Amino acid sequence: MKYCSLCGHPLRVAVPPGDNRPRHVCGHCGEVHYQNPKVVVGAIARWEDRVLLCRRAIEPRLGWWTLPAGFMENGESTMEAAMRETWEEAGALIEVEDLHALIDVPPIQQVHLFYRARLLRLDIAPGEESLETRLFRLDDIPWDELAFETVRLALRHEVDAPGGGILVTSLGSKGSSDQRQRRTSPTA
Amino acid sequence: MKYCSLCGHPLRVAVPPGDNRPRHVCGHCGEVHYQNPKVVVGAIARWEDRVLLCRRAIEPRLGWWTLPAGFMENGESTMEAAMRETWEEAGALIEVEDLHALIDVPPIQQVHLFYRARLLRLDIAPGEESLETRLFRLDDIPWDELAFETVRLALRHEVDAPGGGILVTSLGSKGSSDQRQRRTSPTA
Ligand SMILES: [Zn+2]
Ligand SMILES: [Zn+2]
Repeated sequence: MKYCSLCGHPLRVAVPPGDNRPRHVCGHCGEVHYQNPKVVVGAIARWEDRVLLCRRAIEPRLGWWTLPAGFMENGESTMEAAMRETWEEAGALIEVEDLHALIDVPPIQQVHLFYRARLLRLDIAPGEESLETRLFRLDDIPWDELAFETVRLALRHEVDAPGGGILVTSLGSKGSSDQRQRRTSPTA
Repeated sequence: MKYCSLCGHPLRVAVPPGDNRPRHVCGHCGEVHYQNPKVVVGAIARWEDRVLLCRRAIEPRLGWWTLPAGFMENGESTMEAAMRETWEEAGALIEVEDLHALIDVPPIQQVHLFYRARLLRLDIAPGEESLETRLFRLDDIPWDELAFETVRLALRHEVDAPGGGILVTSLGSKGSSDQRQRRTSPTA
């Protein structure tokens, strides 16, 4: 970030009044340009004992299996994001049920949310970002071919606590293992 | 957003190849500038039957009561954000326990997360953004003087389901009440 997106003038790095950390500040119009983590939302879409996975048609991790997931857009809720991503990547209609996992990934400034969902129809078809969509039995999940660690954790949690509880954890938080907190709230 | 933050040239609005919605694209360097929702994180910090509230020293809602909360920063986890905000706004040390609420606010491009927490020490003191910090009994929460609707919902959920369950809901999603989904996962 080098130029002000409002006025086009060069930015400098400074701690604004009342703030406690350096920000990108415009020397011309005074705007402070904050940078914040992004939210990635995905779905664990179930059909009986199977879960919907997509094989990625894009980098990174082209050819690897993933849950339908992607960046949340302005103007939508997290549940709507889960439905939209599942539609875009797998052509699949879902009913969102419960929050399944919240996984922080501080090194890449992301928060990953996964919702538990029910597949409404069996017809699925890969979208532009997928090579293939397939329903895997929980016993047959391709653990060694999963694209991302957050996907692995979300699926692991589904296998360990089918239909219940929320996984809350943080990945690679400043390399300190005692900052990695994992809590599961089992449902009644 | 009018100018490219990378090269300073004017932006235009166009649908990038492989995308399905208009973005701000740089006509000079080609960079696509995405805009995404921001995450606000707060804490319901308990001391026995009391909960920590702060009276706001800043606009909006100057003088109204709120839970310690604020924008998540790059490089931290959501739990760390809850601890930091509680420290900055109320001088309070907490131990984060469970995820308490996820409240989408699509009209303002925000996702609000609240963690249930335990106050570690009784000494609290208003930070720069607070006029006052106080521990309120759940029976004495100043419902008519709360700063924000998400704070009201989070506190309401604490009163309704003390110590258990996650509230997942969406506020004002495109004005349609049937898009407002509320789910509570009671803990065992
Ligand atoms: Zn400027
Ligand atoms: Zn540019």
